[in-house]
Amino acid sequence: MKDIENWLRVHEEEAIETLKAFCRLPSVSTDPAFTSDIRRTAEFTASLLEKAGFPSVEIIETNGHPTIVGEWCDASGAPTILIYGHYDVQPPDPLDKWHSPPFEPEIRNDRLYARGVSDDKGPLSIPIAVIAAFHEVRGELPINIKVIIEGEEESGSPHFDGTVARLKDRLACDLVVSADGAMWRSDLPSMTVASRGMVAMEVSVQGASKDLHSGRHGGSAPNAIRALTRMIASLHNDDGNVVVDGFTAKALSPDPAIVTAIDEVDFDAAKYFDDIGAPRPDPLPSGTDLLTRQWLRPTLEFNGISGGYAGAGTKTVIPSEALVKITCRLIAGQKPDEIVADVTRHLETVLPSGYQLSIKRHGPGNEAFSLDPSLPALVVAEEVLGEILGAAPLRVAMGATIPIGAVFARHLGVGTIFFSFSTADEDYHAPNEFFRLSSFRNGLIAWARLLDRLGAGI
Amino acid sequence: MKDIENWLRVHEEEAIETLKAFCRLPSVSTDPAFTSDIRRTAEFTASLLEKAGFPSVEIIETNGHPTIVGEWCDASGAPTILIYGHYDVQPPDPLDKWHSPPFEPEIRNDRLYARGVSDDKGPLSIPIAVIAAFHEVRGELPINIKVIIEGEEESGSPHFDGTVARLKDRLACDLVVSADGAMWRSDLPSMTVASRGMVAMEVSVQGASKDLHSGRHGGSAPNAIRALTRMIASLHNDDGNVVVDGFTAKALSPDPAIVTAIDEVDFDAAKYFDDIGAPRPDPLPSGTDLLTRQWLRPTLEFNGISGGYAGAGTKTVIPSEALVKITCRLIAGQKPDEIVADVTRHLETVLPSGYQLSIKRHGPGNEAFSLDPSLPALVVAEEVLGEILGAAPLRVAMGATIPIGAVFARHLGVGTIFFSFSTADEDYHAPNEFFRLSSFRNGLIAWARLLDRLGAGI
Repeated sequence: MKDIENWLRVHEEEAIETLKAFCRLPSVSTDPAFTSDIRRTAEFTASLLEKAGFPSVEIIETNGHPTIVGEWCDASGAPTILIYGHYDVQPPDPLDKWHSPPFEPEIRNDRLYARGVSDDKGPLSIPIAVIAAFHEVRGELPINIKVIIEGEEESGSPHFDGTVARLKDRLACDLVVSADGAMWRSDLPSMTVASRGMVAMEVSVQGASKDLHSGRHGGSAPNAIRALTRMIASLHNDDGNVVVDGFTAKALSPDPAIVTAIDEVDFDAAKYFDDIGAPRPDPLPSGTDLLTRQWLRPTLEFNGISGGYAGAGTKTVIPSEALVKITCRLIAGQKPDEIVADVTRHLETVLPSGYQLSIKRHGPGNEAFSLDPSLPALVVAEEVLGEILGAAPLRVAMGATIPIGAVFARHLGVGTIFFSFSTADEDYHAPNEFFRLSSFRNGLIAWARLLDRLGAGI
Repeated sequence: MKDIENWLRVHEEEAIETLKAFCRLPSVSTDPAFTSDIRRTAEFTASLLEKAGFPSVEIIETNGHPTIVGEWCDASGAPTILIYGHYDVQPPDPLDKWHSPPFEPEIRNDRLYARGVSDDKGPLSIPIAVIAAFHEVRGELPINIKVIIEGEEESGSPHFDGTVARLKDRLACDLVVSADGAMWRSDLPSMTVASRGMVAMEVSVQGASKDLHSGRHGGSAPNAIRALTRMIASLHNDDGNVVVDGFTAKALSPDPAIVTAIDEVDFDAAKYFDDIGAPRPDPLPSGTDLLTRQWLRPTLEFNGISGGYAGAGTKTVIPSEALVKITCRLIAGQKPDEIVADVTRHLETVLPSGYQLSIKRHGPGNEAFSLDPSLPALVVAEEVLGEILGAAPLRVAMGATIPIGAVFARHLGVGTIFFSFSTADEDYHAPNEFFRLSSFRNGLIAWARLLDRLGAGI
């Protein structure tokens, strides 16, 4: 493997330049204003695979944004893996909080700053660069490789399940290796073996048919913000726990291995609040409690709220409408459909008379995922990570949602290991997203060894 | 008076064209983006007075937007009145709800549609047109007239009190007649003898120092929307009454004449909710209850709320900040300073641990106003209105805030009557603001007679 690893070290700058070009494309999948940028990014991604040596690359149309599929399966007798990633990114706003423009990548302190660089353009660029290295140095791969790269991950992957189902023969493989996901901490190697599901909805309340003067009508007219805020304030108790009937009724107990890991990692609660820049609550919760809430408890989070006048200064209106965006993270046993029904029932019950309620769901949502702990490829991946990062990785859960594990298990009948070099602190859904270039370098060597060893047998 | 009234009828179209030109100027005082438009509008307003015959017109600088003062005091032996109005307007958003652009005046069904046309450019244009008629027809006025026209009424008139105090010798008069204000109903002539005060503030809550990923941090991180909505939900009870300690502690009992008027007018609650396009609450409140809430009770209204992601689709963030804009309408006895202190104390008490609270006040606010019911000019104005509108006007209160009455009483020692031809249903703080041209025509004749009769003695 010295040949491949040396080539990768020599050509590292080129790989970073390619990643920068990738990050210049504003492939925001949640906002229709970026549709043509998404198309250009799909074409760019396909060209990356072609340059890396894939003899077959196709842009597959879906009912949403396109998916790219590549195949290079000349390694006779070797197993076949399917690499997963996504080329779409989160919206960049609030734009005024970025220190450098989100789609003009900039290196500062050995970190590359750009929207999407950590989620998932950087981590996805690593296996592509490694495959290019095998192509340039040896002209062949140690293992058969298929690739599927979607463009709707940040929109909840509404068409991914259908696409995988439709292409299931073409995508047949022995194992999925995901270039998406994230290491939990930069100083603690880890393998993610479970993740939370998610379902998203938008709740709006309307009073009058138009905004009204707050002097003339103040006191007699319905105020949509007053109604909505009272309603959503009833979704949690004072401790921040969701108090919606039925919400956790079907939730399953967590894997005891993860509970053990939570105790072992000695999560520092005070440091956590300092790191996110929030005042430490008094009393301070225990680290075990916080990590349990992140990994093993469901949530109902308000992602955005709007209504009435939002400009500078003051405007004396009674708003006719108010709207809140909600996402719930789900644990094993919770079904997206049932959660939406539970929250809807709760809000209908607390809706005051004199208002209209409208609840819109965004996408089908995803159930939680958990990996079979006995999967042999998991052991190989852990071994490679241990060599490169200097310590055996911990098996952890993930608060975020990676729906693909459940999709691949259902349609392809195989397990998925997460082999991403993104780290959870890289602000990937906030301004100033970055990717550590040290992770990029480590990732190149790690992926080269992983492909080589899995090629010997899974 | 036939000469003046005939001239006004003949020149009505010209007066409407001048009003349209006035409305084309986007004089939004609450948003700094419109500062140069405000300046142009001040100059336009001054030119209107000059054309109407005022020998002295001056644009007075303040620490905010300029005020225009005009004087025409050649009617020796006659009393002196001071006419009040404002040339600034509310912000036009939401722009997409307008049927014609807010600053491109359009006549439909004998109504003129434009931002500011009813509040206050149309009503203010009436006395200016009437003075122009006296100038053209007679070359003199039947009464001495001073005019003060401010540019910050929609911003809470932060510099008006100081300006009147500074100019108090120059503005000395026997009576103020306001061209601002509004008839309560288009089918029921009324004189406003009381109005609520107001105070405005902006409340923001911050958790983490930046938006966080709702998967990674969901359940453990502070959510600013969750905190803020819980906090503000505690400001009212289920009936929509304010439950802030001290809020009504110093409120005075209302003038019994207004309570009587409320009983007399037979306010139709069902029609009210139909008119504003809101579902009728069940049980339906009584009309007396609704009108009492509009005229005689204080309010705490949420005018706007924002936080987190407000774009299309979904974004899985935990918002670091959330903000709500609040205005309180005040009744006699409530002091703006004390109300801000009460609301601040309440919010500090319910602030959850782990968040930072910031409360910003917009302007000094205004106390409620009530007019001396024995003012002789009130009887003259009622007589003129009765002739033109066919019925003796009712003496009513006003939910909205007209701070000038208190300002003029304090600095000039005189009463203020409200003689505006705006009607409260003309959407003056909402999209599609309009002004009835029939009110414009009635107003021209009414102001001509009012000036004439007040000239004979106040």
